[in-house]
Amino acid sequence: MKKILYPFFFFAILFLGCTNTNYSKKVEWAIAIHGGAGNINPDDYTKDQLSAYNQALGSALEIGKKVLSQGGTSLDAVEQVIRSMEDCPLFNAGKGAVFNHDGKNEMDASIMDGNGLRAGAVANVGDIKNPISAARLVMDKSQHVLMVGKGASKFARSQGAEIVDSSYFFTQKSWDALQKALEKENSKDKKMGTVGCVALDKQGNLAAGTSTGGMTNKRYGRVGDSPIIGAGTYANNNTCAVSATGHGEYFIRYSVAHDISALIEYKGLSLADASNLVVNGKLKKAGGQGGIIAVDKYGNISLTMNTSGMFRAFANSNGEEGVAIFNNNK
Amino acid sequence: MKKILYPFFFFAILFLGCTNTNYSKKVEWAIAIHGGAGNINPDDYTKDQLSAYNQALGSALEIGKKVLSQGGTSLDAVEQVIRSMEDCPLFNAGKGAVFNHDGKNEMDASIMDGNGLRAGAVANVGDIKNPISAARLVMDKSQHVLMVGKGASKFARSQGAEIVDSSYFFTQKSWDALQKALEKENSKDKKMGTVGCVALDKQGNLAAGTSTGGMTNKRYGRVGDSPIIGAGTYANNNTCAVSATGHGEYFIRYSVAHDISALIEYKGLSLADASNLVVNGKLKKAGGQGGIIAVDKYGNISLTMNTSGMFRAFANSNGEEGVAIFNNNK
Repeated sequence: MKKILYPFFFFAILFLGCTNTNYSKKVEWAIAIHGGAGNINPDDYTKDQLSAYNQALGSALEIGKKVLSQGGTSLDAVEQVIRSMEDCPLFNAGKGAVFNHDGKNEMDASIMDGNGLRAGAVANVGDIKNPISAARLVMDKSQHVLMVGKGASKFARSQGAEIVDSSYFFTQKSWDALQKALEKENSKDKKMGTVGCVALDKQGNLAAGTSTGGMTNKRYGRVGDSPIIGAGTYANNNTCAVSATGHGEYFIRYSVAHDISALIEYKGLSLADASNLVVNGKLKKAGGQGGIIAVDKYGNISLTMNTSGMFRAFANSNGEEGVAIFNNNK
Repeated sequence: MKKILYPFFFFAILFLGCTNTNYSKKVEWAIAIHGGAGNINPDDYTKDQLSAYNQALGSALEIGKKVLSQGGTSLDAVEQVIRSMEDCPLFNAGKGAVFNHDGKNEMDASIMDGNGLRAGAVANVGDIKNPISAARLVMDKSQHVLMVGKGASKFARSQGAEIVDSSYFFTQKSWDALQKALEKENSKDKKMGTVGCVALDKQGNLAAGTSTGGMTNKRYGRVGDSPIIGAGTYANNNTCAVSATGHGEYFIRYSVAHDISALIEYKGLSLADASNLVVNGKLKKAGGQGGIIAVDKYGNISLTMNTSGMFRAFANSNGEEGVAIFNNNK
């Protein structure tokens, strides 16, 4: 696998420096994924750790590419990609979810279908193996959009979602992070590792999804932007699909995902300009750190951050693709 | 009180028929409130019931007028008005909150400050007497925007919010509604009674707030649009303040409150046109029933619904005011 992914990484340094593609003609399909954004430096990681992240991003990307190139739906691509990232302990979602102040896992996820603006989300769930699939069940099998806590788990179970004992979510890394945060009262970690995926399929449908374990040492049932339609996740076939990652409170207050769509629809901005205005303009000015991945109806991709890094990857039907971690503009 | 309020009611029939004011010059202050929207008919209520609703709306309006005319902040007006409506058993918020499938109360509320886009919200809380004040505490006293469930109650209690035994929320009306809904499995009632308030103060600051008990017989920890910033509540000093009420799932999917603001900011629409496009255009086409109240930075007020009724009232510093229930355009 490394043989495939190292070239990815170097390619990415060249290609992702410009962050945005610019098609007016539509590509057949396109996909982008993220595994969290933050102010990280190459020195924070060993060579093996960086290799593991690149490999995980590359593997998740391959899953989405396969679905889309074979004519599958953007919704299936988004769900399957995010499931694979939830199953990977490297990311702060599913298996790798961080611990809250009480030593429990509280996860959030959402998914949106750009065709008809259907949406589903779960928040504050602790025993669903793949929260993104629970969000999809809320969208497909209920009349609701958002379910929280034990009620959401009860619904997911009734629909056949895999429920696991809370011990499934134990990872030494997350536990150590909580102990470290508890030592410094009210401390929180870098909040890295939320995962997300956006996709355009051959039928022209856009979809977006986001999944997170929230913040290490969080208290009081805090919920961030990941399960909030219009904040952390948004998809609209008329405009674009967006998944966000970063300091969630800012992303809620600035309705980040819907705002990018509105700037395209109402102000005629390109995806690149809309993403840049929101992430490097509004959010940066307010002090809201993070980034977004987005794909528009033409297949243009934007991977935009105001931090020094965002785990990310993209691909399209023209054969362009890349994986990257650090912000090459900084 | 009736002596004052009956004239209100008749005045309202005349004045609220046009639904929107149209100022380009700023009034000193302005306020609007709602107590839920739905497809209701005059025949659904006795004369005494209608009188009680008009009186409750008028009393809540007076509280807001007093705050604003004395130079108080729009945030204080919004919080105090909504507190009074939460204390009134006629509305589906606070004291009058409906029961979920398990015979419990699950309440949601949010508040937003158009000055700096600060926001706070609570969802799925069962023991906070005034959820709108808990939302304000989240905004003012925490680094978070949204807290859910017992964690939210724990935080509210730590900040001095009044916690009550769940029996406080018992009303015969809500209980009977649940029994009726339980008889018809999966039935839900008309979902009326969410409350909200928007205000512009003398300092030019806009604020919005919304509070609800959700849907009778709801299951699975369902949360609607009321605690979702950008969906049920939004305020931005550059544009407007909005509070929504109706079929919450549609209001989330259509990012209703933020969309009205975006249409003003990016497309240059008036408050009236933006509200009308979203409520009577997009939402109506999708089948999403409900309405919004909004005030823009000039003090224009919009009370717009696609249902046959919305409990509502408004006032401004020019002495214009009114209370109404039914949609005079239908």
